Amino acid sequence: MTTPTIYLAGPEVFLPNAAEIGRKKKELCERYGFTGLFPLDNEVDPSLPGADRTIYRGNIAMIDQATAGIFNLSPFRGVSADVGTVFELGRMIALGRPCFAYTNIPEDLLDRIKRNEICTQRDTTYFDHQGYIIEPFRNCDNLMIDASLADQGHPIRRPATGRTELIDDLTLFEECLKDFLITQINTQK
Amino acid sequence: MTTPTIYLAGPEVFLPNAAEIGRKKKELCERYGFTGLFPLDNEVDPSLPGADRTIYRGNIAMIDQATAGIFNLSPFRGVSADVGTVFELGRMIALGRPCFAYTNIPEDLLDRIKRNEICTQRDTTYFDHQGYIIEPFRNCDNLMIDASLADQGHPIRRPATGRTELIDDLTLFEECLKDFLITQINTQK
Repeated sequence: MTTPTIYLAGPEVFLPNAAEIGRKKKELCERYGFTGLFPLDNEVDPSLPGADRTIYRGNIAMIDQATAGIFNLSPFRGVSADVGTVFELGRMIALGRPCFAYTNIPEDLLDRIKRNEICTQRDTTYFDHQGYIIEPFRNCDNLMIDASLADQGHPIRRPATGRTELIDDLTLFEECLKDFLITQINTQK
Repeated sequence: MTTPTIYLAGPEVFLPNAAEIGRKKKELCERYGFTGLFPLDNEVDPSLPGADRTIYRGNIAMIDQATAGIFNLSPFRGVSADVGTVFELGRMIALGRPCFAYTNIPEDLLDRIKRNEICTQRDTTYFDHQGYIIEPFRNCDNLMIDASLADQGHPIRRPATGRTELIDDLTLFEECLKDFLITQINTQK
Protein backbone atom coordinates (compact mmCIF):
# COMPACT_ATOMS: atom_id res chain seq x y z
CA MET A 1 0.00 0.00 0.00
CA THR A 2 1.31 3.47 -0.79
CA THR A 3 1.72 5.92 2.07
CA PRO A 4 -1.39 8.10 2.50
CA THR A 5 -0.73 11.80 2.01
CA ILE A 6 -2.24 14.65 4.01
CA TYR A 7 -2.60 18.22 2.76
CA LEU A 8 -1.62 20.55 5.62
CA ALA A 9 -3.78 23.67 5.38
CA GLY A 10 -3.76 26.68 7.67
CA PRO A 11 -2.74 30.30 8.15
CA GLU A 12 0.70 29.29 9.48
CA VAL A 13 2.02 29.90 5.95
CA PHE A 14 1.81 33.61 6.83
CA LEU A 15 4.02 33.30 9.91
CA PRO A 16 7.69 34.27 9.54
CA ASN A 17 8.65 30.75 10.79
CA ALA A 18 6.24 29.00 8.42
CA ALA A 19 8.89 26.59 7.09
CA GLU A 20 9.70 25.41 10.61
CA ILE A 21 6.02 24.82 11.43
CA GLY A 22 5.62 22.91 8.17
CA ARG A 23 8.60 20.73 9.08
CA LYS A 24 7.14 19.96 12.53
CA LYS A 25 3.75 19.06 11.04
CA LYS A 26 5.40 16.78 8.48
CA GLU A 27 7.45 15.06 11.20
CA LEU A 28 4.26 14.38 13.15
CA CYS A 29 2.62 13.01 9.99
CA GLU A 30 5.52 10.61 9.51
CA ARG A 31 5.23 9.38 13.08
CA TYR A 32 1.69 8.21 12.23
CA GLY A 33 2.70 6.65 8.90
CA PHE A 34 1.59 9.49 6.64
CA THR A 35 3.32 11.95 4.32
CA GLY A 36 2.44 15.60 4.92
CA LEU A 37 2.11 17.96 1.96
CA PHE A 38 2.80 21.55 3.03
CA PRO A 39 1.92 24.43 0.69
CA LEU A 40 5.42 25.93 0.97
CA ASP A 41 6.94 22.68 -0.35
CA ASN A 42 6.32 24.29 -3.75
CA GLU A 43 9.03 26.94 -3.64
CA VAL A 44 7.91 29.93 -5.67
CA ASP A 45 9.68 33.32 -5.78
CA PRO A 46 6.83 35.73 -4.95
CA SER A 47 8.49 38.53 -6.94
CA LEU A 48 8.17 36.63 -10.24
CA PRO A 49 5.30 37.75 -12.49
CA GLY A 50 2.26 35.51 -12.03
CA ALA A 51 3.71 34.02 -8.83
CA ASP A 52 0.28 34.05 -7.18
CA ARG A 53 -1.21 31.89 -9.91
CA THR A 54 1.78 29.55 -9.84
CA ILE A 55 1.30 29.13 -6.09
CA TYR A 56 -2.44 28.60 -6.60
CA ARG A 57 -1.92 25.86 -9.17
CA GLY A 58 0.72 24.21 -7.00
CA ASN A 59 -1.64 24.12 -4.02
CA ILE A 60 -4.50 22.82 -6.15
CA ALA A 61 -2.28 20.04 -7.51
CA MET A 62 -1.27 19.07 -3.94
CA ILE A 63 -4.87 19.06 -2.73
CA ASP A 64 -6.03 16.98 -5.68
CA GLN A 65 -3.37 14.34 -5.08
CA ALA A 66 -3.77 14.19 -1.28
CA THR A 67 -5.55 11.32 0.44
CA ALA A 68 -6.87 13.58 3.18
CA GLY A 69 -6.58 17.08 4.64
CA ILE A 70 -6.01 18.58 8.08
CA PHE A 71 -7.19 22.19 8.38
CA ASN A 72 -6.20 24.77 10.98
CA LEU A 73 -9.41 26.82 11.21
CA SER A 74 -8.25 29.14 14.01
CA PRO A 75 -9.57 32.70 13.63
CA PHE A 76 -7.25 34.74 11.40
CA ARG A 77 -7.42 38.53 10.92
CA GLY A 78 -10.93 38.64 12.35
CA VAL A 79 -13.50 36.31 13.90
CA SER A 80 -13.38 33.66 11.19
CA ALA A 81 -10.88 31.20 9.75
CA ASP A 82 -8.35 32.12 7.05
CA VAL A 83 -10.24 32.35 3.74
CA GLY A 84 -7.45 30.58 1.82
CA THR A 85 -7.74 27.59 4.15
CA VAL A 86 -11.54 27.64 3.83
CA PHE A 87 -11.34 27.72 0.01
CA GLU A 88 -9.17 24.60 0.19
CA LEU A 89 -11.58 22.91 2.61
CA GLY A 90 -14.45 23.56 0.19
CA ARG A 91 -12.44 21.89 -2.56
CA MET A 92 -11.39 18.82 -0.55
CA ILE A 93 -14.92 18.26 0.73
CA ALA A 94 -16.17 18.51 -2.89
CA LEU A 95 -13.58 15.90 -3.90
CA GLY A 96 -15.01 13.61 -1.20
CA ARG A 97 -11.73 13.30 0.69
CA PRO A 98 -11.68 12.85 4.47
CA CYS A 99 -11.07 16.22 6.12
CA PHE A 100 -10.14 16.91 9.73
CA ALA A 101 -9.97 20.30 11.39
CA TYR A 102 -9.15 22.14 14.59
CA THR A 103 -9.25 25.64 16.00
CA ASN A 104 -7.23 27.31 18.75
CA ILE A 105 -10.21 28.97 20.46
CA PRO A 106 -12.89 27.04 22.36
CA GLU A 107 -15.67 29.64 22.09
CA ASP A 108 -18.53 29.60 19.59
CA LEU A 109 -18.61 32.17 16.78
CA LEU A 110 -21.53 33.91 18.51
CA ASP A 111 -19.67 34.26 21.81
CA ARG A 112 -16.50 35.46 20.07
CA ILE A 113 -18.39 38.20 18.24
CA LYS A 114 -20.26 39.19 21.42
CA ARG A 115 -16.94 39.47 23.25
CA ASN A 116 -15.34 41.66 20.55
CA GLU A 117 -18.05 44.18 19.73
CA ILE A 118 -21.34 45.63 20.86
CA CYS A 119 -24.13 43.36 19.64
CA THR A 120 -27.89 43.77 19.86
CA GLN A 121 -30.54 41.16 20.49
CA ARG A 122 -34.13 41.09 19.20
CA ASP A 123 -36.12 38.08 20.43
CA THR A 124 -33.71 35.18 19.89
CA THR A 125 -31.73 36.85 17.10
CA TYR A 126 -28.34 38.50 17.65
CA PHE A 127 -26.99 41.25 15.40
CA ASP A 128 -23.37 42.39 15.18
CA HIS A 129 -22.40 46.08 15.39
CA GLN A 130 -22.98 46.50 11.64
CA GLY A 131 -26.47 44.98 11.83
CA TYR A 132 -25.62 41.57 10.36
CA ILE A 133 -27.40 38.59 11.84
CA ILE A 134 -25.07 36.30 13.79
CA GLU A 135 -25.72 32.59 13.23
CA PRO A 136 -27.47 31.19 16.32
CA PHE A 137 -25.84 27.75 16.04
CA ARG A 138 -23.25 26.74 18.59
CA ASN A 139 -20.59 26.41 15.90
CA CYS A 140 -16.93 27.45 15.70
CA ASP A 141 -17.54 29.38 12.50
CA ASN A 142 -19.93 29.79 9.57
CA LEU A 143 -22.26 26.76 9.40
CA MET A 144 -20.96 25.68 5.98
CA ILE A 145 -17.58 25.03 7.59
CA ASP A 146 -18.74 23.29 10.76
CA ALA A 147 -21.43 21.22 9.05
CA SER A 148 -19.11 20.02 6.27
CA LEU A 149 -16.85 18.43 8.87
CA ALA A 150 -19.66 17.21 11.14
CA ASP A 151 -21.29 15.58 8.10
CA GLN A 152 -18.09 13.60 7.53
CA GLY A 153 -18.34 12.35 11.12
CA HIS A 154 -15.53 14.39 12.66
CA PRO A 155 -16.54 17.86 13.86
CA ILE A 156 -13.95 20.62 14.31
CA ARG A 157 -11.78 19.92 17.34
CA ARG A 158 -11.59 22.75 19.90
CA PRO A 159 -9.44 23.27 23.00
CA ALA A 160 -11.07 22.68 26.40
CA THR A 161 -13.33 25.50 27.65
CA GLY A 162 -11.37 28.52 28.83
CA ARG A 163 -8.18 27.39 27.15
CA THR A 164 -6.96 29.31 24.10
CA GLU A 165 -3.97 27.84 22.30
CA LEU A 166 -1.35 29.57 20.17
CA ILE A 167 -2.30 29.50 16.49
CA ASP A 168 0.64 27.19 15.74
CA ASP A 169 0.05 24.82 18.66
CA LEU A 170 0.11 21.22 17.41
CA THR A 171 -1.84 19.42 20.16
CA LEU A 172 -5.12 19.33 18.26
CA PHE A 173 -3.31 18.84 14.97
CA GLU A 174 -2.01 15.59 16.43
CA GLU A 175 -5.53 14.62 17.54
CA CYS A 176 -6.61 15.07 13.92
CA LEU A 177 -3.78 12.76 12.82
CA LYS A 178 -5.08 10.14 15.25
CA ASP A 179 -8.61 10.61 13.90
CA PHE A 180 -7.35 10.00 10.37
CA LEU A 181 -5.39 6.96 11.51
CA ILE A 182 -8.52 5.45 13.09
CA THR A 183 -10.48 6.20 9.91
CA GLN A 184 -7.83 4.42 7.86
CA ILE A 185 -7.90 1.36 10.12
CA ASN A 186 -11.71 1.23 10.03
CA THR A 187 -11.74 1.50 6.22
CA GLN A 188 -9.38 -1.48 5.91
CA LYS A 189 -11.55 -3.73 8.13
CA MET B 1 -32.35 24.02 -23.94
CA THR B 2 -33.13 24.21 -20.23
CA THR B 3 -32.64 27.54 -18.48
CA PRO B 4 -29.15 27.81 -16.94
CA THR B 5 -29.18 28.23 -13.17
CA ILE B 6 -26.90 30.46 -11.11
CA TYR B 7 -26.08 29.92 -7.45
CA LEU B 8 -26.19 33.32 -5.72
CA ALA B 9 -23.56 33.34 -2.98
CA GLY B 10 -22.71 36.16 -0.62
CA PRO B 11 -22.97 37.55 2.90
CA GLU B 12 -26.30 39.26 2.12
CA VAL B 13 -27.99 36.23 3.72
CA PHE B 14 -26.99 37.80 7.05
CA LEU B 15 -28.74 41.10 6.36
CA PRO B 16 -32.19 41.60 7.92
CA ASN B 17 -33.57 42.26 4.39
CA ALA B 18 -31.89 39.19 2.89
CA ALA B 19 -35.11 37.91 1.28
CA GLU B 20 -35.61 41.19 -0.57
CA ILE B 21 -32.02 41.19 -1.86
CA GLY B 22 -32.45 37.60 -3.00
CA ARG B 23 -35.60 38.58 -4.89
CA LYS B 24 -33.81 41.44 -6.63
CA LYS B 25 -30.91 39.22 -7.64
CA LYS B 26 -33.29 36.60 -8.98
CA GLU B 27 -35.21 39.23 -10.98
CA LEU B 28 -31.94 40.37 -12.56
CA CYS B 29 -31.06 36.76 -13.39
CA GLU B 30 -34.41 36.34 -15.15
CA ARG B 31 -33.82 39.46 -17.21
CA TYR B 32 -30.71 37.76 -18.65
CA GLY B 33 -32.47 34.44 -19.22
CA PHE B 34 -31.19 32.64 -16.12
CA THR B 35 -32.75 31.23 -12.98
CA GLY B 36 -31.16 32.37 -9.73
CA LEU B 37 -30.84 29.96 -6.83
CA PHE B 38 -30.70 31.85 -3.52
CA PRO B 39 -29.65 30.02 -0.32
CA LEU B 40 -32.74 31.24 1.55
CA ASP B 41 -35.00 29.58 -1.05
CA ASN B 42 -34.62 26.53 1.18
CA GLU B 43 -36.72 27.66 4.10
CA VAL B 44 -35.41 26.13 7.30
CA ASP B 45 -36.53 27.05 10.83
CA PRO B 46 -33.19 27.81 12.55
CA SER B 47 -34.58 26.79 15.94
CA LEU B 48 -35.12 23.18 14.84
CA PRO B 49 -32.47 20.70 16.01
CA GLY B 50 -29.84 20.14 13.33
CA ALA B 51 -31.05 23.18 11.35
CA ASP B 52 -27.46 24.14 10.51
CA ARG B 53 -26.78 20.79 8.86
CA THR B 54 -30.11 20.93 7.01
CA ILE B 55 -29.17 24.37 5.66
CA TYR B 56 -25.70 23.09 4.72
CA ARG B 57 -27.10 20.14 2.79
CA GLY B 58 -29.65 22.37 1.06
CA ASN B 59 -26.94 24.79 -0.07
CA ILE B 60 -24.68 21.95 -1.24
CA ALA B 61 -27.56 20.48 -3.27
CA MET B 62 -28.20 23.89 -4.87
CA ILE B 63 -24.51 24.40 -5.70
CA ASP B 64 -24.21 20.92 -7.17
CA GLN B 65 -27.20 21.45 -9.46
CA ALA B 66 -26.27 25.00 -10.54
CA THR B 67 -24.82 25.73 -13.98
CA ALA B 68 -22.71 28.60 -12.63
CA GLY B 69 -22.15 30.77 -9.56
CA ILE B 70 -21.93 34.48 -8.82
CA PHE B 71 -20.07 35.30 -5.61
CA ASN B 72 -20.19 38.50 -3.58
CA LEU B 73 -16.66 38.56 -2.14
CA SER B 74 -16.96 41.94 -0.38
CA PRO B 75 -15.08 42.05 2.93
CA PHE B 76 -17.29 40.75 5.75
CA ARG B 77 -16.51 41.06 9.48
CA GLY B 78 -12.87 41.81 8.74
CA VAL B 79 -10.56 42.35 5.78
CA SER B 80 -11.55 39.23 3.88
CA ALA B 81 -14.65 37.79 2.20
CA ASP B 82 -17.33 35.84 4.08
CA VAL B 83 -15.95 32.36 4.81
CA GLY B 84 -19.26 30.67 3.95
CA THR B 85 -19.16 32.24 0.49
CA VAL B 86 -15.52 31.24 0.06
CA PHE B 87 -16.24 27.63 1.06
CA GLU B 88 -18.90 27.55 -1.65
CA LEU B 89 -16.52 29.09 -4.20
CA GLY B 90 -13.96 26.38 -3.43
CA ARG B 91 -16.63 23.76 -4.10
CA MET B 92 -17.91 25.25 -7.37
CA ILE B 93 -14.39 25.72 -8.72
CA ALA B 94 -13.65 22.08 -7.83
CA LEU B 95 -16.79 21.04 -9.73
CA GLY B 96 -15.43 22.91 -12.77
CA ARG B 97 -18.40 25.26 -13.02
CA PRO B 98 -17.99 28.82 -14.33
CA CYS B 99 -17.71 31.20 -11.37
CA PHE B 100 -17.98 34.99 -11.44
CA ALA B 101 -17.28 37.30 -8.52
CA TYR B 102 -17.28 40.89 -7.39
CA THR B 103 -16.34 42.96 -4.36
CA ASN B 104 -17.60 46.31 -3.11
CA ILE B 105 -14.14 47.75 -2.33
CA PRO B 106 -11.61 48.69 -5.02
CA GLU B 107 -8.48 48.45 -2.85
CA ASP B 108 -6.07 45.52 -2.73
CA LEU B 109 -5.93 43.34 0.39
CA LEU B 110 -2.52 44.83 1.23
CA ASP B 111 -3.78 48.42 1.07
CA ARG B 112 -6.91 47.57 3.08
CA ILE B 113 -4.83 46.02 5.86
CA LYS B 114 -2.37 48.94 5.81
CA ARG B 115 -5.29 51.36 6.13
CA ASN B 116 -6.82 49.51 9.08
CA GLU B 117 -3.86 48.75 11.29
CA ILE B 118 -0.22 49.54 11.95
CA CYS B 119 1.89 47.41 9.65
CA THR B 120 5.65 47.00 9.45
CA GLN B 121 7.85 46.59 6.41
CA ARG B 122 11.14 44.68 6.11
CA ASP B 123 12.69 44.88 2.63
CA THR B 124 9.75 44.21 0.33
CA THR B 125 7.72 42.22 2.88
CA TYR B 126 4.82 43.71 4.84
CA PHE B 127 3.68 42.35 8.21
CA ASP B 128 0.32 43.05 9.87
CA HIS B 129 0.08 44.18 13.50
CA GLN B 130 0.18 40.57 14.69
CA GLY B 131 3.32 39.79 12.69
CA TYR B 132 1.67 37.82 9.90
CA ILE B 133 3.07 38.30 6.41
CA ILE B 134 0.66 40.12 4.10
CA GLU B 135 0.54 38.71 0.57
CA PRO B 136 2.43 41.09 -1.75
CA PHE B 137 0.19 40.40 -4.76
CA ARG B 138 -2.14 43.11 -5.94
CA ASN B 139 -5.19 40.94 -5.23
CA CYS B 140 -8.58 41.64 -3.66
CA ASP B 141 -8.10 38.84 -1.15
CA ASN B 142 -6.12 35.67 -0.44
CA LEU B 143 -4.45 34.46 -3.64
CA MET B 144 -6.40 31.20 -3.68
CA ILE B 145 -9.57 33.23 -4.20
CA ASP B 146 -8.31 35.71 -6.79
CA ALA B 147 -6.30 33.14 -8.77
CA SER B 148 -9.18 30.65 -8.93
CA LEU B 149 -11.29 33.24 -10.75
CA ALA B 150 -8.45 34.65 -12.86
CA ASP B 151 -7.62 31.09 -13.96
CA GLN B 152 -11.17 30.73 -15.25
CA GLY B 153 -10.63 33.88 -17.33
CA HIS B 154 -12.76 36.31 -15.33
CA PRO B 155 -10.97 37.97 -12.40
CA ILE B 156 -12.92 39.44 -9.48
CA ARG B 157 -14.72 42.61 -10.53
CA ARG B 158 -14.03 45.69 -8.38
CA PRO B 159 -15.57 49.17 -8.30
CA ALA B 160 -13.60 52.02 -9.90
CA THR B 161 -10.72 53.39 -7.81
CA GLY B 162 -11.90 55.51 -4.89
CA ARG B 163 -15.45 54.23 -5.12
CA THR B 164 -16.73 51.92 -2.37
CA GLU B 165 -20.19 50.43 -2.95
CA LEU B 166 -22.71 49.23 -0.40
CA ILE B 167 -22.34 45.50 0.25
CA ASP B 168 -25.73 44.84 -1.37
CA ASP B 169 -25.16 47.06 -4.42
CA LEU B 170 -26.03 45.13 -7.58
CA THR B 171 -24.06 47.04 -10.24
CA LEU B 172 -21.16 44.60 -10.36
CA PHE B 173 -23.50 41.66 -9.79
CA GLU B 174 -25.16 42.64 -13.07
CA GLU B 175 -21.74 42.87 -14.78
CA CYS B 176 -21.12 39.27 -13.66
CA LEU B 177 -24.46 38.27 -15.20
CA LYS B 178 -23.34 39.83 -18.49
CA ASP B 179 -20.00 37.98 -18.25
CA PHE B 180 -21.86 34.70 -17.82
CA LEU B 181 -24.16 35.54 -20.72
CA ILE B 182 -21.15 36.16 -22.99
CA THR B 183 -19.57 32.89 -21.81
CA GLN B 184 -22.79 31.06 -22.67
CA ILE B 185 -22.93 32.59 -26.15
CA ASN B 186 -19.27 31.78 -26.83
CA THR B 187 -19.76 28.18 -25.69
CA GLN B 188 -22.62 27.70 -28.14
CA LYS B 189 -20.62 28.97 -31.12
